[in-house]
Amino acid sequence: MTGGGNIFGEVFRVATWGESHGTAVGVVVDGCPAGIHLTREHIQKELDRRKPGASDITSARRESDEVEILSGVFRGRTLGTPISMMVRNRDVDSTPYEKFREIPRPGQADLTYEMKYGIRDYRGGGRASGRETVARVAAGAIAKRILSVHSIEILGHVIEIGGIHARELSFDEIRKNAERNAVRCADLEAAAEMESRIKEVKAAGDSVGGIVEVIALNVPPGLGEPVFDKLDADIAKAMMSIGAVKAVEIGAGFKSVRMLGSEMNDEFFITEGKVRTKTNNAGGILGGISTGEPIICRIAVKPTPSISKQQRSINMRSMEEVNIKIDGRHDPCICPRIVPVAEAMLAIVITDHLLRSKISRL
Amino acid sequence: MTGGGNIFGEVFRVATWGESHGTAVGVVVDGCPAGIHLTREHIQKELDRRKPGASDITSARRESDEVEILSGVFRGRTLGTPISMMVRNRDVDSTPYEKFREIPRPGQADLTYEMKYGIRDYRGGGRASGRETVARVAAGAIAKRILSVHSIEILGHVIEIGGIHARELSFDEIRKNAERNAVRCADLEAAAEMESRIKEVKAAGDSVGGIVEVIALNVPPGLGEPVFDKLDADIAKAMMSIGAVKAVEIGAGFKSVRMLGSEMNDEFFITEGKVRTKTNNAGGILGGISTGEPIICRIAVKPTPSISKQQRSINMRSMEEVNIKIDGRHDPCICPRIVPVAEAMLAIVITDHLLRSKISRL
Amino acid sequence: MTGGGNIFGEVFRVATWGESHGTAVGVVVDGCPAGIHLTREHIQKELDRRKPGASDITSARRESDEVEILSGVFRGRTLGTPISMMVRNRDVDSTPYEKFREIPRPGQADLTYEMKYGIRDYRGGGRASGRETVARVAAGAIAKRILSVHSIEILGHVIEIGGIHARELSFDEIRKNAERNAVRCADLEAAAEMESRIKEVKAAGDSVGGIVEVIALNVPPGLGEPVFDKLDADIAKAMMSIGAVKAVEIGAGFKSVRMLGSEMNDEFFITEGKVRTKTNNAGGILGGISTGEPIICRIAVKPTPSISKQQRSINMRSMEEVNIKIDGRHDPCICPRIVPVAEAMLAIVITDHLLRSKISRL
Amino acid sequence: MTGGGNIFGEVFRVATWGESHGTAVGVVVDGCPAGIHLTREHIQKELDRRKPGASDITSARRESDEVEILSGVFRGRTLGTPISMMVRNRDVDSTPYEKFREIPRPGQADLTYEMKYGIRDYRGGGRASGRETVARVAAGAIAKRILSVHSIEILGHVIEIGGIHARELSFDEIRKNAERNAVRCADLEAAAEMESRIKEVKAAGDSVGGIVEVIALNVPPGLGEPVFDKLDADIAKAMMSIGAVKAVEIGAGFKSVRMLGSEMNDEFFITEGKVRTKTNNAGGILGGISTGEPIICRIAVKPTPSISKQQRSINMRSMEEVNIKIDGRHDPCICPRIVPVAEAMLAIVITDHLLRSKISRL
Repeated sequence: MTGGGNIFGEVFRVATWGESHGTAVGVVVDGCPAGIHLTREHIQKELDRRKPGASDITSARRESDEVEILSGVFRGRTLGTPISMMVRNRDVDSTPYEKFREIPRPGQADLTYEMKYGIRDYRGGGRASGRETVARVAAGAIAKRILSVHSIEILGHVIEIGGIHARELSFDEIRKNAERNAVRCADLEAAAEMESRIKEVKAAGDSVGGIVEVIALNVPPGLGEPVFDKLDADIAKAMMSIGAVKAVEIGAGFKSVRMLGSEMNDEFFITEGKVRTKTNNAGGILGGISTGEPIICRIAVKPTPSISKQQRSINMRSMEEVNIKIDGRHDPCICPRIVPVAEAMLAIVITDHLLRSKISRL
Repeated sequence: MTGGGNIFGEVFRVATWGESHGTAVGVVVDGCPAGIHLTREHIQKELDRRKPGASDITSARRESDEVEILSGVFRGRTLGTPISMMVRNRDVDSTPYEKFREIPRPGQADLTYEMKYGIRDYRGGGRASGRETVARVAAGAIAKRILSVHSIEILGHVIEIGGIHARELSFDEIRKNAERNAVRCADLEAAAEMESRIKEVKAAGDSVGGIVEVIALNVPPGLGEPVFDKLDADIAKAMMSIGAVKAVEIGAGFKSVRMLGSEMNDEFFITEGKVRTKTNNAGGILGGISTGEPIICRIAVKPTPSISKQQRSINMRSMEEVNIKIDGRHDPCICPRIVPVAEAMLAIVITDHLLRSKISRL
Repeated sequence: MTGGGNIFGEVFRVATWGESHGTAVGVVVDGCPAGIHLTREHIQKELDRRKPGASDITSARRESDEVEILSGVFRGRTLGTPISMMVRNRDVDSTPYEKFREIPRPGQADLTYEMKYGIRDYRGGGRASGRETVARVAAGAIAKRILSVHSIEILGHVIEIGGIHARELSFDEIRKNAERNAVRCADLEAAAEMESRIKEVKAAGDSVGGIVEVIALNVPPGLGEPVFDKLDADIAKAMMSIGAVKAVEIGAGFKSVRMLGSEMNDEFFITEGKVRTKTNNAGGILGGISTGEPIICRIAVKPTPSISKQQRSINMRSMEEVNIKIDGRHDPCICPRIVPVAEAMLAIVITDHLLRSKISRL
Repeated sequence: MTGGGNIFGEVFRVATWGESHGTAVGVVVDGCPAGIHLTREHIQKELDRRKPGASDITSARRESDEVEILSGVFRGRTLGTPISMMVRNRDVDSTPYEKFREIPRPGQADLTYEMKYGIRDYRGGGRASGRETVARVAAGAIAKRILSVHSIEILGHVIEIGGIHARELSFDEIRKNAERNAVRCADLEAAAEMESRIKEVKAAGDSVGGIVEVIALNVPPGLGEPVFDKLDADIAKAMMSIGAVKAVEIGAGFKSVRMLGSEMNDEFFITEGKVRTKTNNAGGILGGISTGEPIICRIAVKPTPSISKQQRSINMRSMEEVNIKIDGRHDPCICPRIVPVAEAMLAIVITDHLLRSKISRL
């Protein structure tokens, strides 16, 4: 959407706001249908999954991230009017950022914000901070409520970190095990290795990336609009709009490049009166429209740019080259905390298309 | 955008229409600035790059694809009013499609259109046909005109087909060699191998996928809106909205997953009074905003689903399982023809953000 | 909508294009539900009501205005894909406009287009011509098809021209008589007077304005979105977007200013199990949402600016004051021809909100 | 905009939220350019003009309406990121509304909300309350800041209440006197009469309507997009989206209906090197684009529907007819308080088009 690009979705519309070290972060959800059962706890539960300080492999910033619902809900039901939610920023220490006022951190948005706007809130990364995703997760929690009415389930988990891969997992295993460990990997052996790897890298003052997979189960066939607003196109945008994400794939993704058509095509068959496909290389989407098979999306998450190793940068005012070291409190690997964010974005996209699908036939 | 999802872009807005075997395909571009020099030839040149029948590795459908500009241009200059363009469908043979009326082709949108709309134009794939990209390429040609005024250049080429990789190439090599061969690979040796591979696969009644890379050079820093309308998010949507594309990556993409933060971060330095980065793992975009470095995007193109090998499908009316063989005229590898389409989409996204960037500061 | 402002509607989306003396005028409708019975005749019938040359009180321009449906309809049913329609411009005589290249006509958009774009197609008023409404009427014809499935009826008629008022009329009288005379006034006595008045004014080289009323019957309660996208707000925009319209009122409109609250409020009662109102000062809309009562809208149409009397203007190049006389072929009163245009816009707005209403409850 | 219709504007985008007796009301402004000087006082000043309890002819609800800026402003300058603002609801007494749970008040949105959503917050009118305009005024205050950088001025005043008309006034008189009295009428004699009339009507348990005029001075020529997003079309929507507004006119408005073309057309002349018009019947807009003359808009405000006189209504649950009397705290004439709201909406529309105008030429 136009404006400054802070609104997402066409029918289920999410408008986020807030800087990392400003007063608060929040979101307005416009277009939520009336009559949905919704409480503060539904939102808080998801925010708690995202918040920092949950383990020693995440940022030490201490935020209780308590959400306040300010409008749109009346006696536990949505009104059909905008739902405004807010989380105050509490544990704000801007001192370590003073030195980055004029020195952009490599891999961060400092330089580009400055070039775009000529002004920026340099404290804690300002609007470009991962803290903005609080708002996404809150909105996603509402989307998940709507999806649950339609028995649609969203799963998220980490499948690779720092070169360590999870083995192939069933949806049941993911559902059962992903939330049981700090890295959110449902292969518990791999999870332990990933955790060691992250600590090792952190000790070296460095950071590491990984792959997150998000899945939507029980999506009805027929969601998604052909041509530009394909379901996979909107998912791709949603995922790539998350900071640190550098790639998105659906179904077989890059693997499809090395397959023959006869291998890639998912053949149809009939079971229990329904058309299904034998394989799901399509990742649940054909021609931009859901098939009814599970929707599978993987995203590449780059290593966190905030590292304590010395790096080369420049001073934007004096236009001299300088060395910098970033202290602050940072996640050596952001993958585990991106899981609820990616789930939220997937939930928002599917909700948006679920609502849009009501108008494609009379 | 809402509606039926056939409109793309916020400020430079592209509305496409048309079925493969209908009367025509076309596009309306709303939001093109006034005063741009534009002729029929600017459009036709790009359409000629996309059209089938150019070599023996593309579909045998014979379309001259002659574009008619119907509005918005007056004596060689754009008026600021909508530019409507149309290409008549000429070589339409719907006979081979009669048998697919009730039998959806695996890997195609036949089944999902039917499930969504309860009706479809089954002739030639209808709206889901690759023929819809005629409209994108025509709109992209206008975008390229606008970009050329700002000295922004768009390049596209094939870097992998059927397991054969092009070597690393300079922008100069891509510019010089990509259009010189039927597969649009600027590594001419690899190109020859790719062509053989395609013919081999075609002879076996099968198809093959590949990777296309698109590049934007000389993009000014500051394009892209933070949060949802990040430049890379909009590129991801644009690319994933092209049929057959299953993955999108920016800069280091999936490779970033296996890098350390200290390797991934592009350090800043100063040259000729400008801030540059030593490497470009970011692919020209930080925090969703262009850095001024080349914008690099790669897309995974699946093997064409239309293959002549026998496949299993079902009859949607009788709900029985059946065998099908697809004859028709198809591309055994769509990568070469996707190059101008992906270029068009990249040009459209960058034009849209170029225009949007005018309003971020007073 | 952004872009250049040539797209209307959120879900039922209408994109128009074309200049008065260009190749053609047309429209793309995106978001029409699938499965609607639609033929060329449905469109042509409405275009015939709008076209010039139907009587001696309209412009002498001779246009058969034959519409071509280019996409989105398959064997008499809508596909859910964009419906593209086009009407070629035939009777184009640009000679009389040569002298207005540099001299803007008072009351017309010549000067403002030039100031906005620095270029304009001065032939026949270019994009600012009333000819643009061909596209609106074609799109409105589709909207009327959708409304007819829901038994919603749109009526339009002229209630005042040049100081002559129609008497109060029942919906039946409007339905029966409005189309029976050249001025589209259902009070046949007033109609005759209006026609004389128009001829008199025309003979004097002048023009005259009037009031058009449009009505929607059988609109279900619950259409319209609160706050900004109120049903009446969208109707107001739709009507004011028609050239020559200078005011819009809903229900009692300006009369409500002189009423007391106790007179203005429409009291509720119950009949046949339905809540109705005794009066309809609200014009069928409360809080931006339809009540189920008839929707009543009146628009003020200014006298046609093209008059043959001498007027003062300026030469934009030499920046001198000059006298001008406008010959061309013009309507001395545009009201009768605005009736189908205003009906089309009302039909489009109600269709858009009808489709939107499907998503306000789960 | 889609969603639930709570977002206004294309580039300068305003998203409002909040129920009358909920926790708070607020707004997120997305698309405000960076670098604008903006403080809490700029917003508060406008809110103070709107707030109730300022005189004995307005509602007795006591709200300090203290605004909190939550994001988007850093050290007195806008960041280009969303500006979130909130006002807590303090003086909330929902008791008088208990009896309207099942009985819709005539002339209010009670019934239509219930029909649309099947649920509503009946306390204080919920989302349909005039309290929602707090958010509009806050957003309008930002728009006025942007306009002031371009020397554009917005004026608003009351020109008619209860049959009493203000005389013709110069812009200077309006600027000087409109804010000097409780009814916001710049003709001080008429103002006194209006005030008496309001008190008289209030004493009778009734209410009264009026006409508000808003004006934009020094608007540059060239703002507004032709066809659908005409400047006057967007103004019409903006005004009609304000509760209680039943009609909108631009320039001569309904008077133009009784004028000849030769009287209505504003002839051009040249003064100080600029093209001006001798009269301004067009109200500063031709073909939907600003001419540079003052933009003049008048709106018809219906008498407040909340009156203490007995009225007939129905019980929605028992479906019986009943008598009701509304106590609560209400404005007997809402015109004075609509002035800052209408100014805010005009400021928002002009700001939106000012920003959009940057992209119509390259």
